[in-house]
Amino acid sequence: MNSYPVGLAKWDLDTPALCLDASALERNIAHMADYLSTRPAALRPHSKTHKCPTIAWKQLKAGAIGITCAKLGEAEVMAHAGIEDLLIANQIVGPRKIARLVNLAQYTRVIVAVEDEGNAVALSEAATAVGATLRVILEVDVGMKRCGVAPGEPSLALARRILALPGLQFDGIMGYEGHCVMLPDLAARRQAAEEAMAKLVGTRDLLVSRGISVAIVSGGGTGTYQFTGNYPGVTDIQAGSYATMDAKYREAGGADFECALTLIARVISVTGDRAIIDAGMKTMTHEFGLPPVTRPAGWALVKLSEEHGILERRGGEPLRRGDTVELIPSHGCTTINLHDNFCVTRDGRVEAVWPIAARGCIA
Amino acid sequence: MNSYPVGLAKWDLDTPALCLDASALERNIAHMADYLSTRPAALRPHSKTHKCPTIAWKQLKAGAIGITCAKLGEAEVMAHAGIEDLLIANQIVGPRKIARLVNLAQYTRVIVAVEDEGNAVALSEAATAVGATLRVILEVDVGMKRCGVAPGEPSLALARRILALPGLQFDGIMGYEGHCVMLPDLAARRQAAEEAMAKLVGTRDLLVSRGISVAIVSGGGTGTYQFTGNYPGVTDIQAGSYATMDAKYREAGGADFECALTLIARVISVTGDRAIIDAGMKTMTHEFGLPPVTRPAGWALVKLSEEHGILERRGGEPLRRGDTVELIPSHGCTTINLHDNFCVTRDGRVEAVWPIAARGCIA
Repeated sequence: MNSYPVGLAKWDLDTPALCLDASALERNIAHMADYLSTRPAALRPHSKTHKCPTIAWKQLKAGAIGITCAKLGEAEVMAHAGIEDLLIANQIVGPRKIARLVNLAQYTRVIVAVEDEGNAVALSEAATAVGATLRVILEVDVGMKRCGVAPGEPSLALARRILALPGLQFDGIMGYEGHCVMLPDLAARRQAAEEAMAKLVGTRDLLVSRGISVAIVSGGGTGTYQFTGNYPGVTDIQAGSYATMDAKYREAGGADFECALTLIARVISVTGDRAIIDAGMKTMTHEFGLPPVTRPAGWALVKLSEEHGILERRGGEPLRRGDTVELIPSHGCTTINLHDNFCVTRDGRVEAVWPIAARGCIA
Repeated sequence: MNSYPVGLAKWDLDTPALCLDASALERNIAHMADYLSTRPAALRPHSKTHKCPTIAWKQLKAGAIGITCAKLGEAEVMAHAGIEDLLIANQIVGPRKIARLVNLAQYTRVIVAVEDEGNAVALSEAATAVGATLRVILEVDVGMKRCGVAPGEPSLALARRILALPGLQFDGIMGYEGHCVMLPDLAARRQAAEEAMAKLVGTRDLLVSRGISVAIVSGGGTGTYQFTGNYPGVTDIQAGSYATMDAKYREAGGADFECALTLIARVISVTGDRAIIDAGMKTMTHEFGLPPVTRPAGWALVKLSEEHGILERRGGEPLRRGDTVELIPSHGCTTINLHDNFCVTRDGRVEAVWPIAARGCIA
């Protein structure tokens, strides 16, 4: 969108529209930066949520030491936007993808996660073939049971193997405590996150005791930033959702951050206490529950089909055809991934349109 | 993607990739065209599934009389690809969207659904303001209880009102029996679809008996094409999913059509009988259940996170890191909407890349 309606009230936008409140976003970014300014860990925020170089740059300017990416395609978009410190927090597997990674490493500082010797050998061969050096980080399974090598001795063995491979630079370790970030009880969440980080930092200690330098010890998400970011030995945390937030993280106790992200939709049909809006599953995801309606009060989203949402009246004033409603996405990461742009507002008026440039970069 | 790997085996594609088997697609399009060639109804296929002008043109060349669209943005993309007969099967509400609609109507033949007098007046005013004529079709609620005016007298009253408004051309009626298309028992589905079409054709009869010309009587989906498409009085059906198909429609008895649509993903981690693939909720939707794994046999997808899928072994041969797996999307419409391109293959080798040009066109 090269031309956008500057100054338009967000309620008058064509719908559906994914909106981002600039002031709330800035406060969220500042709050995380302030918190970490006196803690052991720095911030390496995850771009898998916002997929937007504009936001990534705001995070870097607020002190973030680099950007974490889920996929190589996402890292490529961030690199094209001039971002030079990128951590791909996943395994890069397959000859075509490894070739792309080695290419990316030649014009930006990219670190990639490794959990397996065979994969490390493939990365080493691809890097040496073109005379490049790939920075790698060991992914340690800190209890999530998805990817990662076991902590302790297996991690040590793989680190030693990586150190022996040409074309690779061993930069440290990471572990994502994804099994903790949504635990409803905060004390239990803290305990689980600290147990996970104890495995990670314990692994660092083992490697250091054998003479291996471990520059990076990375973990953490929005749901655990205050525990992981405060855990001695953790060098940086990968929180991503904190900047935009969503209803699920708010519900899970993320009261430190505001929901900067909302959706505007329009009523296209009304029958009694039911209103149909022009936004469905192609506008918002619902794996974390149906998004709450914040405007008007007294209405609830009760069903989504592909292109429609059904609202029911819960004591609110009647809605009329043409009225604008606002919802908070329940899961920001997957909802943002449906949209090409953020409509950025301040004090309720359009200020900018930011491309979600890494949307759909799944490969 | 201006340059793509012609001739590459689909198993060697970088992953994840959304694949479309060209031969299966062509057979599906031909089968529907053949079926309807001796039935009362013509085909006005829905583009909300494939969102791809290339496929829409194949459908038109096989005899379709126009393209149905869910959203105005989708219709704009189809018009930009040179398609001239477009039915927007939803209400267009709000001044900005109505202005866009009137603009579109000036360079293509677009028909829009109406369910309300106030909306009809707004359309009339916008059309007359620029000297345009908007073609409108009455949306009748045939039992789905989402949008639409009640059949019979209320439809007659609204049709008369539309006929009296300048700038509007009354083209007929439509009704979508979305409540029937997935009924598991085919006999029950047939009965429900015929009841829905009886309401629609009954409304047509009432209008005609009062001297109103009803050129279009449109309804139907992939799950009911053989009932709705064979119902006397129905002029065209709006089936969309039949061309690409998906696992849910196959399961619901759509054995007449092949699953042309698949997803290729890659194993990035293996632990015993569990394999992690590089495709998650940003690659495939799961509101209709987890997509079945078709290659290799004996493995099942058991969980999706944002960027990962977890497979479990169900008697299959062991998987290794780097292996390619294939899945069938459970819901084609929402899964295709996550992707920017179809990787089109024939006999398992890449033949073309087709842009999913209307992806994300929700407004």
